[in-house]
Amino acid sequence: MNPGSELQEICLEHGSGGALSRELTEQLIHPFFENENFKELSDASAFVIEGRTFLTTDTYVVDPIFFPGSDIGRLAVFGTCNDLAVCGAKPRYLTLALVIEEGFPINDLKRVLHSVSEAAREAQVRIISGDTKVVPQGKGGGLFINTAGVGAAILPPERLLTPAAIQADDCVLLSAAVGAHGLAVLCAREALPISSGIRSDCAFLYPLCESLCSLGPDLRFMRDATRGGVAAVLNEMVGGLDLSLRVEETRFPVLPDVAAVSELLGLNPLEIANEGVLIAAVSPHTADRALELLKEHPLGRMAAIIGRISKDHPGKVVLETAVGGRRILDLPRGLLLPRIC
Amino acid sequence: MNPGSELQEICLEHGSGGALSRELTEQLIHPFFENENFKELSDASAFVIEGRTFLTTDTYVVDPIFFPGSDIGRLAVFGTCNDLAVCGAKPRYLTLALVIEEGFPINDLKRVLHSVSEAAREAQVRIISGDTKVVPQGKGGGLFINTAGVGAAILPPERLLTPAAIQADDCVLLSAAVGAHGLAVLCAREALPISSGIRSDCAFLYPLCESLCSLGPDLRFMRDATRGGVAAVLNEMVGGLDLSLRVEETRFPVLPDVAAVSELLGLNPLEIANEGVLIAAVSPHTADRALELLKEHPLGRMAAIIGRISKDHPGKVVLETAVGGRRILDLPRGLLLPRIC
Repeated sequence: MNPGSELQEICLEHGSGGALSRELTEQLIHPFFENENFKELSDASAFVIEGRTFLTTDTYVVDPIFFPGSDIGRLAVFGTCNDLAVCGAKPRYLTLALVIEEGFPINDLKRVLHSVSEAAREAQVRIISGDTKVVPQGKGGGLFINTAGVGAAILPPERLLTPAAIQADDCVLLSAAVGAHGLAVLCAREALPISSGIRSDCAFLYPLCESLCSLGPDLRFMRDATRGGVAAVLNEMVGGLDLSLRVEETRFPVLPDVAAVSELLGLNPLEIANEGVLIAAVSPHTADRALELLKEHPLGRMAAIIGRISKDHPGKVVLETAVGGRRILDLPRGLLLPRIC
Repeated sequence: MNPGSELQEICLEHGSGGALSRELTEQLIHPFFENENFKELSDASAFVIEGRTFLTTDTYVVDPIFFPGSDIGRLAVFGTCNDLAVCGAKPRYLTLALVIEEGFPINDLKRVLHSVSEAAREAQVRIISGDTKVVPQGKGGGLFINTAGVGAAILPPERLLTPAAIQADDCVLLSAAVGAHGLAVLCAREALPISSGIRSDCAFLYPLCESLCSLGPDLRFMRDATRGGVAAVLNEMVGGLDLSLRVEETRFPVLPDVAAVSELLGLNPLEIANEGVLIAAVSPHTADRALELLKEHPLGRMAAIIGRISKDHPGKVVLETAVGGRRILDLPRGLLLPRIC
């Protein structure tokens, strides 16, 4: 890196639009993302996708930016790709917009950019447009990353994987154990010694989504369970419907470390953010096949059927607890965990 | 707005992914952007564009968010649309990603969202995907907005409006007076009493760009002169070429207030950010026609031919000064103005 060569930290001039801005983008950022769509210093880049195209955006403000199992760079690539994947789209192109706080270490920036480029390679997406802003010290959070994503539909136009497609008796599946990402970040932030075993589950979910799409119209709905945890997604699924969802607490896979630390901190693993957990609703007669499809993939080896759509408490998620009771699993309230993704 | 109804400020819970997040997006944000692509609470939205499609991204961190002549909302819409327009693309769809600092006034958020929706209507673009994050007090700058934009090419695929298309003897045009945006923001931020007359030039430049595209291959290059001012763009034009650019200082339109305040503050209007200034290079025999086309539009009524491509100082911009001297107009160095867009 040569921006002033001796510079170890980002300074306001890196965001000025002048000579140092240009050095930063040309010498440090662009080399990570050279590809045929990104070879010119142009304001926008071109692509061609035939047919239905999906667009999504997400800003990542996770604190700290490096945590066990992942970092903000991988998160910014996989998180946005996953938002496309659950809509039945193959992620193809990403934008990358950085908001860097003055004083941010240039070596950390390199580490994050390396991580972004590795994750993009893994997900087979191209970063084709970017932006870098620098804000004064005390006006930012170190590093924020926005990625917008463009994906190509892999389902026919009439197939919308929205809650409206869900029907009574459909089965609901979960692809992986819950709660790891949020706890990994929290433990890293607070430097809790109890954190040793927990790693973020941050992962690229498109392969799982593509498998489930092979079920055709028997696949009703998919969503990744990020902020608000599975509790939030399950509530979003049935919140606007005349249907309810019954889930069994004992069926949710939870890793022993996650269960123990959640208990200790008084957190509910069902409300903790994940970055590698897929929720899907499928027709009852394809539930076993869907489970097989998930388990065929390393990311889905702990997959489980967690519940069933019914009609008894419209709009609600009913949790059958481990001890045989029943309660409404509500949309999480209260502070939860800030800056978790 | 009903998020807790009595709440006047954004709190961390608004970004938690739980109940208050949902209230914020469903009750306050979505009503501004209801359209056929944005009617579902989905992770991504679909569109169809035949042929070559352009993608761009920009984060807006302007401080203050309201300033004479415009605000962060209009800026976030027009700025990203302009990045598409100068590539020869008609802006069609935008994403909208907010990073809000805890304590941000909800009324200010409404005002910005209103401004975003008005600007989107003016530009005939649809906001089809969004994201909202909340960061703790002291870890943000009030409000940051990222917009990614998707546009449809209006030029054939072989036409790339990059500097490589520029030829010797081409004429360079400027569409409007320079320096207003940066000074309007600076004066608002520092509450300088001298600011009274200066308003940001923030504008939607697509109509000008579309007009110039009618020139066919005689239009070589377009760019909006934002961060770093016209000095930065002119240098980016010829920086990598075997050609140089001669410009005449007296030909640059500068409003009297802008000239006076720049002088007072020791700033060069050519290095100050604009948000409604287009620079174009065209073949010599179409320069007059290009000037007419720009002047036909209210945004281009002060348009001028400012210079000509030559071969004498490859890669350099040579400024012929008002007093008859000559100097190199360099890529701006030094701090310039932070958080100007």
